[in-house]
Amino acid sequence: MTINTTPPELPRVTTGPLPASTKVWKAGTLHPDIRVPMREIALHPSAGEPNVRVYDASGPYTDAEAAIDTATGLPRPREAWIDARGDTETYEGRRIRPEDNGRDGASGKLRPFPRAHAPRRATGDRPVTQLAYARAASSHPKWNMSRSARTWAATPALARPRDGESFGAAIPDHVTPEFVRDEIARGRAIIPANINHPELEPMIIGRNFLVKINANIGNSAVTSSMEEEVEKMVWATRWGADTVMDLSTGRDIHDIRDWILRNSPVPIGTVPLYQALEKVGGIAEDLTWEVFRDTLIEQAEQGVDYFTIHAGLRLHHVPLTIDRVTGIVSRGGSIMAKWCLHHHRESFLYEHFEEICAICRRYDVSFSLGDGLRPGSIADANDAAQFAELETLGELTQIAWKHDCQVMIEGPGHVAMHKIKENMDKQLECCDEAPFYTLGPLTTDIAPGYDHITSGIGAAMIGWFGCAMLCYVTPKEHLGLPDRDDVKTGVITYKIAAHAADLAKGHPGAQIRDDALSRARFEFRWEDQFNLALDPDTARSMHDETLPKDAHKTAHFCSMCGPKFCSMRISHDIRSEAQKEGMAKMAEKFRESGALYLPETDA
Amino acid sequence: MTINTTPPELPRVTTGPLPASTKVWKAGTLHPDIRVPMREIALHPSAGEPNVRVYDASGPYTDAEAAIDTATGLPRPREAWIDARGDTETYEGRRIRPEDNGRDGASGKLRPFPRAHAPRRATGDRPVTQLAYARAASSHPKWNMSRSARTWAATPALARPRDGESFGAAIPDHVTPEFVRDEIARGRAIIPANINHPELEPMIIGRNFLVKINANIGNSAVTSSMEEEVEKMVWATRWGADTVMDLSTGRDIHDIRDWILRNSPVPIGTVPLYQALEKVGGIAEDLTWEVFRDTLIEQAEQGVDYFTIHAGLRLHHVPLTIDRVTGIVSRGGSIMAKWCLHHHRESFLYEHFEEICAICRRYDVSFSLGDGLRPGSIADANDAAQFAELETLGELTQIAWKHDCQVMIEGPGHVAMHKIKENMDKQLECCDEAPFYTLGPLTTDIAPGYDHITSGIGAAMIGWFGCAMLCYVTPKEHLGLPDRDDVKTGVITYKIAAHAADLAKGHPGAQIRDDALSRARFEFRWEDQFNLALDPDTARSMHDETLPKDAHKTAHFCSMCGPKFCSMRISHDIRSEAQKEGMAKMAEKFRESGALYLPETDA
Repeated sequence: MTINTTPPELPRVTTGPLPASTKVWKAGTLHPDIRVPMREIALHPSAGEPNVRVYDASGPYTDAEAAIDTATGLPRPREAWIDARGDTETYEGRRIRPEDNGRDGASGKLRPFPRAHAPRRATGDRPVTQLAYARAASSHPKWNMSRSARTWAATPALARPRDGESFGAAIPDHVTPEFVRDEIARGRAIIPANINHPELEPMIIGRNFLVKINANIGNSAVTSSMEEEVEKMVWATRWGADTVMDLSTGRDIHDIRDWILRNSPVPIGTVPLYQALEKVGGIAEDLTWEVFRDTLIEQAEQGVDYFTIHAGLRLHHVPLTIDRVTGIVSRGGSIMAKWCLHHHRESFLYEHFEEICAICRRYDVSFSLGDGLRPGSIADANDAAQFAELETLGELTQIAWKHDCQVMIEGPGHVAMHKIKENMDKQLECCDEAPFYTLGPLTTDIAPGYDHITSGIGAAMIGWFGCAMLCYVTPKEHLGLPDRDDVKTGVITYKIAAHAADLAKGHPGAQIRDDALSRARFEFRWEDQFNLALDPDTARSMHDETLPKDAHKTAHFCSMCGPKFCSMRISHDIRSEAQKEGMAKMAEKFRESGALYLPETDA
Repeated sequence: MTINTTPPELPRVTTGPLPASTKVWKAGTLHPDIRVPMREIALHPSAGEPNVRVYDASGPYTDAEAAIDTATGLPRPREAWIDARGDTETYEGRRIRPEDNGRDGASGKLRPFPRAHAPRRATGDRPVTQLAYARAASSHPKWNMSRSARTWAATPALARPRDGESFGAAIPDHVTPEFVRDEIARGRAIIPANINHPELEPMIIGRNFLVKINANIGNSAVTSSMEEEVEKMVWATRWGADTVMDLSTGRDIHDIRDWILRNSPVPIGTVPLYQALEKVGGIAEDLTWEVFRDTLIEQAEQGVDYFTIHAGLRLHHVPLTIDRVTGIVSRGGSIMAKWCLHHHRESFLYEHFEEICAICRRYDVSFSLGDGLRPGSIADANDAAQFAELETLGELTQIAWKHDCQVMIEGPGHVAMHKIKENMDKQLECCDEAPFYTLGPLTTDIAPGYDHITSGIGAAMIGWFGCAMLCYVTPKEHLGLPDRDDVKTGVITYKIAAHAADLAKGHPGAQIRDDALSRARFEFRWEDQFNLALDPDTARSMHDETLPKDAHKTAHFCSMCGPKFCSMRISHDIRSEAQKEGMAKMAEKFRESGALYLPETDA
């Protein structure tokens, strides 16, 4: 891997392919100019099996051929397609104001992203959402929809019969554009893709597709910078983040978001309330619908692909939290609760929800309806407050759908294992199978410093049960802002959880990579084992700690057991012996039923 | 924490209490001289709640008052009790031979443990096992049984109604000595406690008790030393390992085991086959019952508390593995399979199983019946080979019980989530609820370097479903021998899995620590939050990366969100406001049913 060399004041991001990997493209059949990117992992010739193609959300950064310049931003391949639809217009857009970057004295000193693109919106108030197109069975959105099926295009013929328990999901053997369209139209999947984020490589989120993961990044008032956050975004997608949320709450958040969006190949989500709060100097009570609305338009024009909106938190829910161990732990939820109580009225998010829909449909910003009352401790899981809000989120889902807006639903939080399935089942029921998007859940409170693990357990389980996207938790959760290393640990942990869920759901093709890696392991193709791993660098360096030489890369043992005790080596001996002797015949000879001790036989 | 200062050639081990922790002792009522050790975590006076007592398997090393000298070994408090039973005798014991430490030229250079204790065995062939005593309802073993109930003694009155799904376990509200005895007599729990390991603090393994974890240590022919392995044992118990397996397969394994046993407060398990193989120069085919038997007696005299014996692998099972992706991945299993095939006969472990029982019952060595055919890849999970062996393990359980031997059963391995419960259910059925003891299972094959996480997911689930002890997996699994850092990561990950399982099963009192930590978190008692964590050192250092000052330890925010966005701080504001206004009244005022938008009301 190399660090590209933009001038020092520009973000330096990690580029170059992963080990033994090449970016390959599969062209569409209907539209040959639509190319789906995949990562092909080359195996050693001795493997005698095809290279392995895996899902690849990392964009041009891992393409050896791509020229990366963070000050220019990524290419905008969707722009021409969107334009060709003929249902949008570019316009001057909202003027950037100083408070967009915060009110404190140190704000506004960041270099703005150098290239301004005129924003685009729907002409009139027509919907330009993937949901509207899917419902109309329009041909326009095929570009998005075909590309979203990229995982499946990468799937060779199934190696073995499907095997899994999907709890009522409807996962097909092969994903077709029609299936994608049906799932979108049904509201059971979304393609977050703001028309102002044409750098995006579209992807799909829904329970009948591979489980996706999100990585949260963003500065806080205490720490970090634009440069660090742009690199975190690139770094997160390098390791497999399917979407990234920019949760910046410190200075310069308009400009930081611009830098991130223009360089992001994956959908970017935000919580617009955070910026709105900055605009009113951090005083929750001073928030207004007008400031919030202004922020929505600002961010929609920039290209944010999905908005977390805490509109499900209602005034009468707040008292339900009074006896909780940890109160309200959602930042957005606590801000809105405070606002509601102070003003003694329903939140402006709830009251103006239809107006919010009217904005989102003009840019195709998807909803991620926030769970402001998610439990922050094992004690508070699945309580009345949480489920009351979930029911409201179900109502809001119907309203959003009425406006042709795409919706997913956020979920907890901290939940002991025996209460996880109830969350999933209740969400499916209340929200009519709109995609669920959960933070963990953490299965215990007692391991700060390891909450990627406490939550990885819950994430794998809820992914299996039907959750469509898992929001990562890093080791720093509850303790501090994650740095680059924490981001990687969080992403890899959640790729594990998502993949474990795909296997358990019986996704066709999910096991291909496991099988290829296990064969490599059994055949002592160490390099193939490393290269097929979610994190080849770490696998290799751990091995090399004790056996660094090249010769060790074909050795029939490792330092864990040493040569005499390598079970896999012995297994090979057994197979050779069996081939000589005819193992099936031997088995027959020694099979018995009932008697514990067989009489000894001569060799 | 301090490192004690024995002379350089002796193992240097980590001693001293964990942060804010004191070793406390609860004296028995029937036998006041029996003291159960616990760890009391002091909370800040502002907490206004009692200090928290937690299970503590770390022995004298975390006792500020204890003098530790690894060349002397730990005190032997059980010795007098065992002697007082009057059913054992000391005797000269087997003579140590050079090949006990291996046949290679570099072996036998280690300093033997300086203090030789005469071994003890049952007089005649009477059983001196906890199972025999429990069946006889003898009063002798109460010492062990009472101490094994230490967790429960630490449990104050239940803070909340019990809540959980135990899948048919029979977990009582309060554990009594009678309950312990009944569970032992039923074979549903074991107390591994060799009469030659009187340094041990007894503990219990069974599905109706807290889920336990095991840490594997031991050198290999490629790397590590006695000093490192003794420290790994102490280090593992410091972080919560309930038992330790010494899986040494390199040089000097007799002497290394002596050093470990004499210094271990927890049960030590081994795989005697590894040493037997060393005695025959590493040639599996040259193994004999006589060499194996000799090794069992050698290790029983040293004080090994449980033996992994792969007696369930039968000759006719081996061909069932021929089409597997990863063959036989258990070291013991592959050695025995090779032996069986070479000699064309049943293994000597299976044929001589009753003689093995006769040895174990004289020393109270428990069985850990090995799963030599556990799956080594997702593809091989729950296959015919694995389940055929499990059925044989069920037969062997009955034979062991007939001889009054304590038994647990080892389990997989690599298993996708949807196949985990089948493993647990089948084990309960085949083995009549003898405790299950599983390695993970790993829920995917694609993350070498992170297999503590892939397996922690499976471990939490199978612990919930009824598994009694979880064998840890470290980040180095498949890649190399774990070092001290890997041991800690493995132990903490598995403490998380075990605790998540205890919560989900609804163990009374399990949630006390979660609740105390969550209250500390909500009240910004940062020090209490760190001290209550499974790993206080890591929690504190992660927090201090961005906010190192003392004043930050009472700050009402951290660097993750910064002061304006701390939801917990805002929650406190909400509560204050609510107290002023009368929140319940307010809720009433604003409650509505049906209408989405409320008419605005005056503040």
